[in-house]
Amino acid sequence: MQKYQKELDDWMKSQKWEYWTPHEITVRLMEETGEFARLVNHIWGPKKKKATEAEQNLEDEIGDILYTLICFANSNDLDLDRAIEKSMAKVIKRDKNRY
Amino acid sequence: MQKYQKELDDWMKSQKWEYWTPHEITVRLMEETGEFARLVNHIWGPKKKKATEAEQNLEDEIGDILYTLICFANSNDLDLDRAIEKSMAKVIKRDKNRY
Amino acid sequence: MQKYQKELDDWMKSQKWEYWTPHEITVRLMEETGEFARLVNHIWGPKKKKATEAEQNLEDEIGDILYTLICFANSNDLDLDRAIEKSMAKVIKRDKNRY
Amino acid sequence: MQKYQKELDDWMKSQKWEYWTPHEITVRLMEETGEFARLVNHIWGPKKKKATEAEQNLEDEIGDILYTLICFANSNDLDLDRAIEKSMAKVIKRDKNRY
Repeated sequence: MQKYQKELDDWMKSQKWEYWTPHEITVRLMEETGEFARLVNHIWGPKKKKATEAEQNLEDEIGDILYTLICFANSNDLDLDRAIEKSMAKVIKRDKNRY
Repeated sequence: MQKYQKELDDWMKSQKWEYWTPHEITVRLMEETGEFARLVNHIWGPKKKKATEAEQNLEDEIGDILYTLICFANSNDLDLDRAIEKSMAKVIKRDKNRY
Repeated sequence: MQKYQKELDDWMKSQKWEYWTPHEITVRLMEETGEFARLVNHIWGPKKKKATEAEQNLEDEIGDILYTLICFANSNDLDLDRAIEKSMAKVIKRDKNRY
Repeated sequence: MQKYQKELDDWMKSQKWEYWTPHEITVRLMEETGEFARLVNHIWGPKKKKATEAEQNLEDEIGDILYTLICFANSNDLDLDRAIEKSMAKVIKRDKNRY
């Protein structure tokens, strides 16, 4: 993830853009996970898929969630590789029935 | 992300575990983003932080979200690197005021 | 809420419709809260509002969330009036700094 | 809902409390829906329920979501009865396969 974090950060700086506030990015995360949820119900659930939504796909929606998390991480000095490694280590040790 | 996806998948196979269903992982994602949201309000918002929650931190919560997304990606054959690259390319072109 | 719960339930029965599963309704709730979040960032946040989204409004989005909760409550025999009363009582006693 | 909206508003005024900002309440909504999601996976999903969480129940979690929505509605002059009525009318007409 370091590569992506740096790539975005360099771009932000080159454009002199500022990251949103933590609350704004969090609300954005809620929106993006909501779009992901809609697609899950479309594909595996009871709701009929609308034509206009056909071109979207799961990978795009997950990409938007990941992008939002990268923004949050960059604006708060978080290391996403370390984050993943900690969560993976924790899960593998702690909970043999997870996923 | 490929490294993490493969690492988890190898582990799952070695343990003969199965991934959850798409709906179950999505509901899990909702839980994990909710824990992240709680922490955001604790740190930047109006709600007083409880002692028992002090040890948690943002990186851990983001790690759990990322872990959940890796599970979803693995169980549905999604490539998270391609997902991030698409989202980053899209944003940089499309929306000059984002984040 | 009892009035709304009964109204919807009578309608469902008259149409011989069945409620979705708990997981499906929960994923739907995630979608609806995501649409609400998008609007919050549009109105109070940094993201520019698109023309096509102008007609939506907060009340509609909250209505969809409430409708989703009514569906969940009906399909699992929950009493939403009692739910609200418990939460209001709890908050007023427990936490003098909330909201 | 009018009764609950007024009851809370009277209480807030009597205590001279102020509602949180829209972003803060939205992030809170995300937290509360996350707690609800956790319980859904506990009851119907693959995750083993922890003892400490046994006393929680769905009605409590939905109550907290509804309470959060009442706070948002009060602080932004929304009428939740009208919101529900609009959503119910829309659904019944628009989508014969919903829920």
